[in-house]
Amino acid sequence: MRRSPRLGTHRRAVIDAILDATPLCHIAHVVEGRPVAIPTLQWRIEDQLYWHGSTASRMIRTQGVGGPICLTVTMLDGWVLARSAFHHTMNYRSVMCFGQPQRIAEDARKLEVLELFMRRWLPGRWEKLRPTKRKELAATDVMTMPILAASAKVRSGPPDEPKADHAWPVWAGHIPLELKTLKPQPAPDLDPHLAAPRLGAALSRSKPG
Amino acid sequence: MRRSPRLGTHRRAVIDAILDATPLCHIAHVVEGRPVAIPTLQWRIEDQLYWHGSTASRMIRTQGVGGPICLTVTMLDGWVLARSAFHHTMNYRSVMCFGQPQRIAEDARKLEVLELFMRRWLPGRWEKLRPTKRKELAATDVMTMPILAASAKVRSGPPDEPKADHAWPVWAGHIPLELKTLKPQPAPDLDPHLAAPRLGAALSRSKPG
Repeated sequence: MRRSPRLGTHRRAVIDAILDATPLCHIAHVVEGRPVAIPTLQWRIEDQLYWHGSTASRMIRTQGVGGPICLTVTMLDGWVLARSAFHHTMNYRSVMCFGQPQRIAEDARKLEVLELFMRRWLPGRWEKLRPTKRKELAATDVMTMPILAASAKVRSGPPDEPKADHAWPVWAGHIPLELKTLKPQPAPDLDPHLAAPRLGAALSRSKPG
Repeated sequence: MRRSPRLGTHRRAVIDAILDATPLCHIAHVVEGRPVAIPTLQWRIEDQLYWHGSTASRMIRTQGVGGPICLTVTMLDGWVLARSAFHHTMNYRSVMCFGQPQRIAEDARKLEVLELFMRRWLPGRWEKLRPTKRKELAATDVMTMPILAASAKVRSGPPDEPKADHAWPVWAGHIPLELKTLKPQPAPDLDPHLAAPRLGAALSRSKPG
């Protein structure tokens, strides 16, 4: 993607809208001097980011002993087709958050933030679930980091190219992409009388404010 | 996402199918001891990965002086809803490639691999474009890295949970996600007689072999 400083912002409203648009993030950390970028699920509660993982995972073990991370969220919003190869790009929204994560020590707080994650995407589901067992909670680490050093980049709309190229006879414009939710697929052994849940928030291409 | 060693593979057919399914990747590298994960566009030609960037970007400057990177591609394929919070997860396909990138020095080779990127996603378009100028090519760095140390993780299908949970009276199953290509939006100044291109490969949820 072509970098353009004018696309960058530190505005929290823009940053929050992107963090809230998808659970998928990539977290980079350093293991023995080498960078590792791992996909995981993030969620925001006010000024804090959260993510979770198995206590057995290398990601969580590495982050648990301190050390800086970079958490990046990116939504691919479309193709941008210009009259020259050079001015082709993608429309996207991306946030990078830097900091040092902390593990949440208290079981009650861990359960509370996991509940808020589910309420964000699957409202009304938490209270219907088989309750979480103590050993399940013990096998889950929840990490957190304040949203302090963060920036967003947003590119949207038609190509940005020199006026001199506009008359070149090839189609130009942008082709939006959208992450659609398809039909729920019941588990093979499911009682057919149980209704599929509605997702609380679409993984949408809606633009941040 | 919950880690499960049985999901991992080093099979090249699986790795290649995921790398070819989307141009979006996140590249982690280390800048002054700190990890940075940056979204960019990747493409594969046989046993090599390629990505490009502005010669002015910090990402490219950092990678140009050597140092290891991790290039990760992730497709989010769906929600997995179990009867307990603990067994909820996402369906996804992900590849991590480790190595040390090299900058492509020769202009002719740079142009050739950029052309192959466009042919991959927008077949028939390259030859219609306003030709690339020497200074545009000079302002673009193309990086490459062999696919040597790479692994894939794939999770698909219904939830995997203890038999004892199956009778719990809540909906369980999975809800697929798909990245759809929407209607092309012409640039404001476009001659309406020019036809919109067809995308060469859908950004699909098709499963790797």
